[in-house]
Amino acid sequence: MKKIRLFTPGPTMVPEEVLLEMARPMEHHRTAIYKEWVREAHGLLQYLFQTKATCVTIAGSGTAAAEAAIVGCCPPGHKALVIDNGKFAERWVKVCAAFGIAHTRLPIEWGRGAKGTDVSKAMDADPKIDTVILVHSETSTAALSDIAGIGRVTRDRGALLIVDGITAVGAIPCKMDEWGVDAYITGSQKALMLPPGLAFVAVSDRAWERIESGKMPMLYNDLKAYRKSLAEWDVPYTPAVSLVRGLLWVLRGIKERGLESIWAETAMLARGTQAAAEALGLKVFPADPVDSVTAMVVPQGVDEGALRKTMRGKYGFQIAGGQGELKGKIIRFSHMGYVDAFDTIAVISALEMTLRGQGYKFSLGAGVSAAQAVFAEGMK
Amino acid sequence: MKKIRLFTPGPTMVPEEVLLEMARPMEHHRTAIYKEWVREAHGLLQYLFQTKATCVTIAGSGTAAAEAAIVGCCPPGHKALVIDNGKFAERWVKVCAAFGIAHTRLPIEWGRGAKGTDVSKAMDADPKIDTVILVHSETSTAALSDIAGIGRVTRDRGALLIVDGITAVGAIPCKMDEWGVDAYITGSQKALMLPPGLAFVAVSDRAWERIESGKMPMLYNDLKAYRKSLAEWDVPYTPAVSLVRGLLWVLRGIKERGLESIWAETAMLARGTQAAAEALGLKVFPADPVDSVTAMVVPQGVDEGALRKTMRGKYGFQIAGGQGELKGKIIRFSHMGYVDAFDTIAVISALEMTLRGQGYKFSLGAGVSAAQAVFAEGMK
Repeated sequence: MKKIRLFTPGPTMVPEEVLLEMARPMEHHRTAIYKEWVREAHGLLQYLFQTKATCVTIAGSGTAAAEAAIVGCCPPGHKALVIDNGKFAERWVKVCAAFGIAHTRLPIEWGRGAKGTDVSKAMDADPKIDTVILVHSETSTAALSDIAGIGRVTRDRGALLIVDGITAVGAIPCKMDEWGVDAYITGSQKALMLPPGLAFVAVSDRAWERIESGKMPMLYNDLKAYRKSLAEWDVPYTPAVSLVRGLLWVLRGIKERGLESIWAETAMLARGTQAAAEALGLKVFPADPVDSVTAMVVPQGVDEGALRKTMRGKYGFQIAGGQGELKGKIIRFSHMGYVDAFDTIAVISALEMTLRGQGYKFSLGAGVSAAQAVFAEGMK
Repeated sequence: MKKIRLFTPGPTMVPEEVLLEMARPMEHHRTAIYKEWVREAHGLLQYLFQTKATCVTIAGSGTAAAEAAIVGCCPPGHKALVIDNGKFAERWVKVCAAFGIAHTRLPIEWGRGAKGTDVSKAMDADPKIDTVILVHSETSTAALSDIAGIGRVTRDRGALLIVDGITAVGAIPCKMDEWGVDAYITGSQKALMLPPGLAFVAVSDRAWERIESGKMPMLYNDLKAYRKSLAEWDVPYTPAVSLVRGLLWVLRGIKERGLESIWAETAMLARGTQAAAEALGLKVFPADPVDSVTAMVVPQGVDEGALRKTMRGKYGFQIAGGQGELKGKIIRFSHMGYVDAFDTIAVISALEMTLRGQGYKFSLGAGVSAAQAVFAEGMK
């Protein structure tokens, strides 16, 4: 028997109950039943994003929702600052380029997050900037940006703040209204523990003003159509019905459990994994580590490709490698969604057995016991 | 007990085996396993579209794929003819307008399909037209356009032909290469008997030339990125993994059964339903009826809203009403996907019982027996 365990930072493991919920017979979307689902999901998404804002659901990947938010908020006459500190941040620069949006790219070293001062300096240097776009938790580097601090800067200066929260929302604190985020984006396949195929964007009143003021070349991703339909708990295009069914199940559970409790557990898993890395002599890659994903530097003498192949092929653990310039240099472990302390103990154990197989020197069990110590304390 | 039966022209009923296939544990998409799924699905999609062309899969509704094809094929310097004969055709006019695509709208009466002569006349009147966009089977009116005939016109004149085959592909003959279609679009929730959330577009070499020649404002729906990834059986953005799993199951079954056999069965269901309508004194709405959906005119004295409410609330049959200018005037029955002669007998029976409840005069059983006669002959 080989059990498969998914530790990739999206898609993440889907609870059995959710798989079965999504396997229920198809419902049509132009019905009173579906309107009721839209209404309930909307209220629960507001809780998830910690907001009173309108929350749009799109059938598509997170990229679709990010494009919808970025393009909608940047009609001609506006200028964006795009913070580029990883593979996904890079994609938002590409969206600006593809749609001819006036923008400045602010490169930040991979592994670092952005701070309020990065944004205030860039805005001082170019007063035309009235929109800031960045990634909350950069999946490719496992680095955390300070959205609360950046939100203070953008609010003070009347700029819009667009945040890719794809590996953040539902895993780590994301407080849209308190922090002054104007468009917060997430996807179904991360902390929401669903298959990929749904994307979400919560949009502030200030952002709606901007979106409604402009006319950008888009139809499927045009948020205006979604807002108009939502006023009647309706959808403009055929929605991904089965995923929405799973979404309701998941969001009800998140509300019942409470976001604070989920954030605390995710943080504990990150602490335990970081403690294990340290005990094994592996460096945590990012300077500003996030709690939703841990990235470790592959030590000298260890082959990353062979390591991941053994982890998956021999032990059944699917972890992620590096992307772009980090290919072959790091390995990444998710702490999002349907994963607990004992799953995490298991993946650390498999990592140890794999490293040992490659001749890496360490004391077998050191990582596991370091994580255990953190979890024993956290679960008291 | 009340069994629910979905007769809406999308979403359609999903086979139990497909629901369970999609309920299998999540797979990551950057793996050898997923590449193999992409490769296999691509070959099967080529069979579905009857083409050697590249077939792109997008996570989204059919609108996303149609937008991708229309916008990609219409960079500046080109001009489109958009045939507008229903609610979905209207949407493609809106796509052209949203992206500033030079276009002429050719209105055709709702319920009629377009013919080659409609297109040749319009192209004679405006030699700038080098792209023709239309709907093969207009879901809102259940009307069929003559793609083979139109393809002869567009090929003769070197124009690109973009066809929305959302309620056509996999249900009625759709022969991309033989007919000279350059972009053929479909969605998962119709003849493919899957939940909504996947969209497809098969793209000819001529269309790729046009797409690669231009630079339109799009990222998520930019087909160039999908083509580049497909060259390595990869995907540019996170795909809807569970739906793709179901897709493989369905496409294998379609190939095994054979498209000709599916087209014949769909046509038989349409004939039987039309015969039932006639026996009940109900007029089939479209002048050019398609085999994938049957639309009937609601007779004088019958309340369409109450009829559909009884069909669903009392008997468990979800059928569709009219859209736009046909709201309240027609009812529609799907013949696509996981539906057979006996399901169709059942829905006709429920229709009769509902009509009788509203005091409509007819001989109870007349519709059912008319359909039975067609099916008995067709299933010999």
